[in-house]
Amino acid sequence: MSVSIFDSFLTTSEIIQVFDDEAVLQAMLRFEVALANAQAQEGVIPAEAAQVIARHGDIAAYDVQAIIVASRRAGSMAIPLVKALTKAVGDDDKSAATHVHWGSTSQDVIDTGMVLATRDALRLIDTTLLSLAERLLDLADQHLHTPVLARTLMQPAQVTSLGFKFTAWAAPLVRARRHLKAAAGRALQLQLGGAVGTLAVMGDKGPAVVRRTAAELGLAVPDAAWHTQRDEWVRLGLQVAVLAGSLGKLATDFSLMAQGEIAELAEPAGAGRGGSTAMPHKRNPVSCMTALAAAGRVPQRAAALLANMGQEHERGLGNWQAELAEWPGLFISTHGALQAMREAIEGVHIDTARMQRNIDALQGLVYAEAVSIYLAGAIGKPQAHTLMEELTGRAVSESRPLGEVVIEAVRRDEQLDSRLDLDALQALFDPRVANANAAELARAQMASLRQALNEPGSPTSQP
Amino acid sequence: MSVSIFDSFLTTSEIIQVFDDEAVLQAMLRFEVALANAQAQEGVIPAEAAQVIARHGDIAAYDVQAIIVASRRAGSMAIPLVKALTKAVGDDDKSAATHVHWGSTSQDVIDTGMVLATRDALRLIDTTLLSLAERLLDLADQHLHTPVLARTLMQPAQVTSLGFKFTAWAAPLVRARRHLKAAAGRALQLQLGGAVGTLAVMGDKGPAVVRRTAAELGLAVPDAAWHTQRDEWVRLGLQVAVLAGSLGKLATDFSLMAQGEIAELAEPAGAGRGGSTAMPHKRNPVSCMTALAAAGRVPQRAAALLANMGQEHERGLGNWQAELAEWPGLFISTHGALQAMREAIEGVHIDTARMQRNIDALQGLVYAEAVSIYLAGAIGKPQAHTLMEELTGRAVSESRPLGEVVIEAVRRDEQLDSRLDLDALQALFDPRVANANAAELARAQMASLRQALNEPGSPTSQP
Amino acid sequence: MSVSIFDSFLTTSEIIQVFDDEAVLQAMLRFEVALANAQAQEGVIPAEAAQVIARHGDIAAYDVQAIIVASRRAGSMAIPLVKALTKAVGDDDKSAATHVHWGSTSQDVIDTGMVLATRDALRLIDTTLLSLAERLLDLADQHLHTPVLARTLMQPAQVTSLGFKFTAWAAPLVRARRHLKAAAGRALQLQLGGAVGTLAVMGDKGPAVVRRTAAELGLAVPDAAWHTQRDEWVRLGLQVAVLAGSLGKLATDFSLMAQGEIAELAEPAGAGRGGSTAMPHKRNPVSCMTALAAAGRVPQRAAALLANMGQEHERGLGNWQAELAEWPGLFISTHGALQAMREAIEGVHIDTARMQRNIDALQGLVYAEAVSIYLAGAIGKPQAHTLMEELTGRAVSESRPLGEVVIEAVRRDEQLDSRLDLDALQALFDPRVANANAAELARAQMASLRQALNEPGSPTSQP
Amino acid sequence: MSVSIFDSFLTTSEIIQVFDDEAVLQAMLRFEVALANAQAQEGVIPAEAAQVIARHGDIAAYDVQAIIVASRRAGSMAIPLVKALTKAVGDDDKSAATHVHWGSTSQDVIDTGMVLATRDALRLIDTTLLSLAERLLDLADQHLHTPVLARTLMQPAQVTSLGFKFTAWAAPLVRARRHLKAAAGRALQLQLGGAVGTLAVMGDKGPAVVRRTAAELGLAVPDAAWHTQRDEWVRLGLQVAVLAGSLGKLATDFSLMAQGEIAELAEPAGAGRGGSTAMPHKRNPVSCMTALAAAGRVPQRAAALLANMGQEHERGLGNWQAELAEWPGLFISTHGALQAMREAIEGVHIDTARMQRNIDALQGLVYAEAVSIYLAGAIGKPQAHTLMEELTGRAVSESRPLGEVVIEAVRRDEQLDSRLDLDALQALFDPRVANANAAELARAQMASLRQALNEPGSPTSQP
Repeated sequence: MSVSIFDSFLTTSEIIQVFDDEAVLQAMLRFEVALANAQAQEGVIPAEAAQVIARHGDIAAYDVQAIIVASRRAGSMAIPLVKALTKAVGDDDKSAATHVHWGSTSQDVIDTGMVLATRDALRLIDTTLLSLAERLLDLADQHLHTPVLARTLMQPAQVTSLGFKFTAWAAPLVRARRHLKAAAGRALQLQLGGAVGTLAVMGDKGPAVVRRTAAELGLAVPDAAWHTQRDEWVRLGLQVAVLAGSLGKLATDFSLMAQGEIAELAEPAGAGRGGSTAMPHKRNPVSCMTALAAAGRVPQRAAALLANMGQEHERGLGNWQAELAEWPGLFISTHGALQAMREAIEGVHIDTARMQRNIDALQGLVYAEAVSIYLAGAIGKPQAHTLMEELTGRAVSESRPLGEVVIEAVRRDEQLDSRLDLDALQALFDPRVANANAAELARAQMASLRQALNEPGSPTSQP
Repeated sequence: MSVSIFDSFLTTSEIIQVFDDEAVLQAMLRFEVALANAQAQEGVIPAEAAQVIARHGDIAAYDVQAIIVASRRAGSMAIPLVKALTKAVGDDDKSAATHVHWGSTSQDVIDTGMVLATRDALRLIDTTLLSLAERLLDLADQHLHTPVLARTLMQPAQVTSLGFKFTAWAAPLVRARRHLKAAAGRALQLQLGGAVGTLAVMGDKGPAVVRRTAAELGLAVPDAAWHTQRDEWVRLGLQVAVLAGSLGKLATDFSLMAQGEIAELAEPAGAGRGGSTAMPHKRNPVSCMTALAAAGRVPQRAAALLANMGQEHERGLGNWQAELAEWPGLFISTHGALQAMREAIEGVHIDTARMQRNIDALQGLVYAEAVSIYLAGAIGKPQAHTLMEELTGRAVSESRPLGEVVIEAVRRDEQLDSRLDLDALQALFDPRVANANAAELARAQMASLRQALNEPGSPTSQP
Repeated sequence: MSVSIFDSFLTTSEIIQVFDDEAVLQAMLRFEVALANAQAQEGVIPAEAAQVIARHGDIAAYDVQAIIVASRRAGSMAIPLVKALTKAVGDDDKSAATHVHWGSTSQDVIDTGMVLATRDALRLIDTTLLSLAERLLDLADQHLHTPVLARTLMQPAQVTSLGFKFTAWAAPLVRARRHLKAAAGRALQLQLGGAVGTLAVMGDKGPAVVRRTAAELGLAVPDAAWHTQRDEWVRLGLQVAVLAGSLGKLATDFSLMAQGEIAELAEPAGAGRGGSTAMPHKRNPVSCMTALAAAGRVPQRAAALLANMGQEHERGLGNWQAELAEWPGLFISTHGALQAMREAIEGVHIDTARMQRNIDALQGLVYAEAVSIYLAGAIGKPQAHTLMEELTGRAVSESRPLGEVVIEAVRRDEQLDSRLDLDALQALFDPRVANANAAELARAQMASLRQALNEPGSPTSQP
Repeated sequence: MSVSIFDSFLTTSEIIQVFDDEAVLQAMLRFEVALANAQAQEGVIPAEAAQVIARHGDIAAYDVQAIIVASRRAGSMAIPLVKALTKAVGDDDKSAATHVHWGSTSQDVIDTGMVLATRDALRLIDTTLLSLAERLLDLADQHLHTPVLARTLMQPAQVTSLGFKFTAWAAPLVRARRHLKAAAGRALQLQLGGAVGTLAVMGDKGPAVVRRTAAELGLAVPDAAWHTQRDEWVRLGLQVAVLAGSLGKLATDFSLMAQGEIAELAEPAGAGRGGSTAMPHKRNPVSCMTALAAAGRVPQRAAALLANMGQEHERGLGNWQAELAEWPGLFISTHGALQAMREAIEGVHIDTARMQRNIDALQGLVYAEAVSIYLAGAIGKPQAHTLMEELTGRAVSESRPLGEVVIEAVRRDEQLDSRLDLDALQALFDPRVANANAAELARAQMASLRQALNEPGSPTSQP
């Protein structure tokens, strides 16, 4: 496979295929054929020549490895490819050979080839992303009222709703989907400028050839050649990087909840999945592992894109080539992460009883803020604050549930007892009361997220 | 100044001011006042308390350095600030003190404070960006037909139009402006969620308090607290990073053209600007230096934002704090770069005569492609190609202008002479013919860029 | 303070002081004085001139902010500083003024100034590092036999020794200390080359002046000016980055063990340290937070150093300046992390009972591998493997301790019973038997680490 | 090939081979065989079992792609590999199967496999590095007195020696070689710790097995398992990154000198190397392109290593896997850069006449500092300074050589004429006088660099 062994380990076969040697070179040939067709229609080259060129647009007929090796000396992947295409065309029809790659430059072929491959990659991402987001929203719906600990600074904080957590995981995925579509709409554009971006060889036919070639490939028409102005292209890459970041956030939370000592979530078990006979209690979160690995790598890919934007004049020396080489990794890592988390979420094991036990283990201290507020309403904040400090201290030192300590204290104090509603007080220790607000907020957000998922089709949906 | 010495060297006093210790803490106090007002209006706290709180919202009354030092132990900048505010309020009116920061959490204060500071930073950037883009388009207009070498892979390639180059520099700036506006519209949102993002303390008043606080601060209303879902915030930072990349591209080209041996452009001279008595021929491109330094740093800041997205559960440990600390640098570097390049472009010295001499020094070889195409039209591509190889070889080995060699060859060959129009052939060696296509493309793009610059107001234009 | 507010939050006042505006400019003046002294001793400038220059080497006499602002136009921090020094010297003794900065260049002053500041920074780091490593080794010694869960892939795996864990935390710190010393020995070298690194102005006195100036400042003598060959300097920065990475590893483990649900370690409590009245059960690991923030930022600083190594010809444009501005952050973040973790380890609360409870909660499954090996010795591996699969399955499904299930199974099976030593079998479920190997390995490593800590003095120990 | 298409374009076939799927898995099998042999020698497993295992240590017998695909679900590359090995061994000799991978863990196999592959990669790098450094020193020797412009801030500054420049390029390569050796000596160590790094399964035989296995593989014996303490490993990667930075510096300078308008150096021409018929004047610096691409990518790889150091407890989740996947790219990019620059330097075309013309084009202004110093010796610095300002101004405004202007001025001024030696003055305009100091410094440094290159053998020279 055209990726390094540990890259392959961390991704899917589908996305490897998209940026495979053959696939990328095939996309470049597709550009050449589309260009020839467009030029023929505009009368720039003879129609017969375009037909001959089209007959040689299948990469299967070429020696891919020889082209790659030759590219190193040539300083461009397009040079040996165009040479091989020209030879094949010339062997077929000598007069057609001179019309190959007419008025185009290496970077036109390569950039457009990468645009086409990237469109395929985005389709894979979109499909998996949609499926993951939908599944998360379904789970959010089912667990809207399930109590679970919220945690801040790696410490249990208060009680929240599991549905609220799932909604929070889904939201950035839904946003990523929309942003990816918008960025793709701008970045998936034809590259065609000729040697220095001025379309000089095609004279006044240039713009029409650009429009026709773009249309044939289903790509956007650029405002200008973007040989060294990579901003829209980089923005697309950065959107992928943000998605990887959000997947990393999801995997971080999941893996923390899946720790043996917390055990609120677990990845699906199954044939060859994370088991160990030596350590039979282990269920390794291998999907989280894949997503976390992506999140640990992709930021550097994003930095590489940005760091290589200073491409000199009309074609860069080294920086463009660096960008090309960094690009596929963004998609390969991110699709690996997406697919992994989809699997994990698809078959997630949710232990709601354990969630409750983890809450209970905190002796009701997680309800202290709510109790304090309730008391403040009755006896004023300063007194409430002083009282609660005493009561939580007692609960901790005596290892007793805070609820018990509070009720006892109220009962013992006539004044308090008369001013407080013990049932209301007791209710504050009910996790489903504690998370009611969270559930309500999640319900509203879920609705708008579902709506966003059903928005009309993506700019990546072209042929 | 609240930046390191070499940061200060590479930026402007205005943007340093925006992220100054006092300014950031002032923005946090602004949040507290707005929150109290909103809560008073919703009946969550007494109106009198809000009034007292509002009286203590001026950072000038606090010991800024003491707050910063105390924040280290507290683990949050907001804790000592809120403590100081609470003390000040309590000293003024004891009963008001308990209403300070009500239902809010440290991260609400800090994030909203940073949002407010960032809005100020974006305004500075927008103003300078607009001015730079406009100036570039003016220059593009003036130099639409000025011939200059296009260069690829750090080698002279063909003749293009200087206006075309200037337009290409302006285009990503215009796009950046639009993207920044859109990203700001999403990211400049209130942060308000309380301890774990559920607004639990404010009960059913929460959403209304959020809306009112956001309105008072002129910020967008978030779909949900974004304590640990940083995607939209990071996207804004990344837009700034892309802008820095485009400025680096501009500075790269400029500094290459300003090399003593090329000398097509120069930065403005002037009091204390880049001179040297020991080396009186030097005119150091100090603006380019500043922009290139930004372009060499900002990608890493962007990576830091992305790398710290995996913020745990409801509040991150270390990663959120890392993001906060990395954030200002993005804006500080980029505004420094913008201001520097605006100065450079404002007073740029353009040596069109030298541009022509640099073209001439290439003996007309830069026109070889155009000549080849013209010949192909008359004698077919294969013969044209063979002939041109011979003629360019002769021009190089005899150090003669290609134009002279070609005309001579045509004159000596009766057949050629009869089939070719010598005037048309000669015209191909006219740089203004060679760059006519470039000029035409630039003219069209300039018009659409100017239009984009006049688009209606930015989401950062709120109070 | 000369750092951004959230940088300040995450570090110590001592290290901020080292890279403070005044401190850095003072170090530059120190270079000028040392250079003048060296040149006077070599007869390059008059001894009187050197004396006058030495009288004006105190930064307190200069307007620091004016120098910084002027540096922006000048394109160098040294230009306005040298101008101010020259004026002060000239006002004192007109003839001495022309001998200021003789034969030197801006970069000589600035780089040497940064070397001097960096030496101070390394001293702070070394002291804190030593103290942290020693404390960890003491703890390792105390807890050599304390059983604690080892965890892999975020899951409990087997039983290890707490001393083994502490030793593993100490080891990279000890290595970092040695590497920092070695790197400092190479990188803390004088910069002195004159305009283009050739010492041309000083003629054949150049090398002697270099040696004398270096000696006066206690710096290494460089093989050559390193204006644009930054490799040794960058290597020093990278050693700091590796240290930050190791501190991040320590903070990661600590914060995971400090989670409320695991609660094996806790940071020291105390005045203003991580408490919360609203959430009285919380003890935020604020030291880990600081170290994790450093670990999330420093890798990007390291990348910035590497990315800016391509400094052009004899002085870089933008990249050198970027490096200067990135440099202090490495030390500021890392010293913050070091100091934070030293505090955390100094006052760490170790709950060995909880460690045992966390082991017990796994029903003895963590001993399965050891049991399996013991069985294999008696009944062969294949049978042992099959048996253990059955027994661990039973333990899990019946929620019983594996030890109980195993002993029961052996007793019920005559053949097994006759071939196995029940006491030996039982012993395998003793955590102190399980971690004996770990303790033994740790003991040996601890000894060699202690020895390394007592190695002779550092190259940073010069004046 | 097991790399992405544009990675392949930018590197060599040799280094691709080193990290090829098969090669990496082969290295893992080599570990298994060595472990079995060591264990047999220590009596941990039967000698016969080790012999059977050794018979199945050739990766050619396995289905590599099936192993990679299975690794994704398993969460480790070693799991399916060990399974396949165990099956092969068991099919051969049933009783031997249980002794496969005895007491070892996935990470032991994988890390040691990567160590072995890395050793091969370092050998390739060392050979090419030596050859490049030697060639540069030869060139430095030949051109010790060749005048060439020194340039600072992308502007011509003064005259230096080409040999001085070449020496400066060679020096960091020589240092890199030494640092790589030292780092390899520490990092190329066996990984062997068992499940949680305690060698528990092997009991007191553990340390001896470690020593024997390390010896058999020619690797260093680790102080402890380094499953999650990656500091020495990362340091090795960072040394490679620094080398890439130094190569980027070399390629930056080379490509700037190769610009058509400067034309002091050119890459070798030749079959399929950087030519263009459309632009016959172009000679694209494709070697520099490759090295610059590496320098634009490798810093991000280094950051990825550092960013993934926080590996949790006894085995990391995601971060270790990210590090594995990032690792080969460092070597692949750097060897590509090395090989490219070796080719470029091997066949470099040096145009000394053009170097002189570029100096001459500056009208002698590059000698102004030397003249000023000479004048100062005669008439005092203040007067010399004033005079030179006037004369350089005149030279610039009248476009005359400074030498002519100065001599004329001296001749016209009786006082000056009497105090100055016109021949000595004239000599200051001789480039070989101007660069004499540079030549002298370079000569000394060259000698010590050559000596360093001849230092005794590398720790990577083991079997």
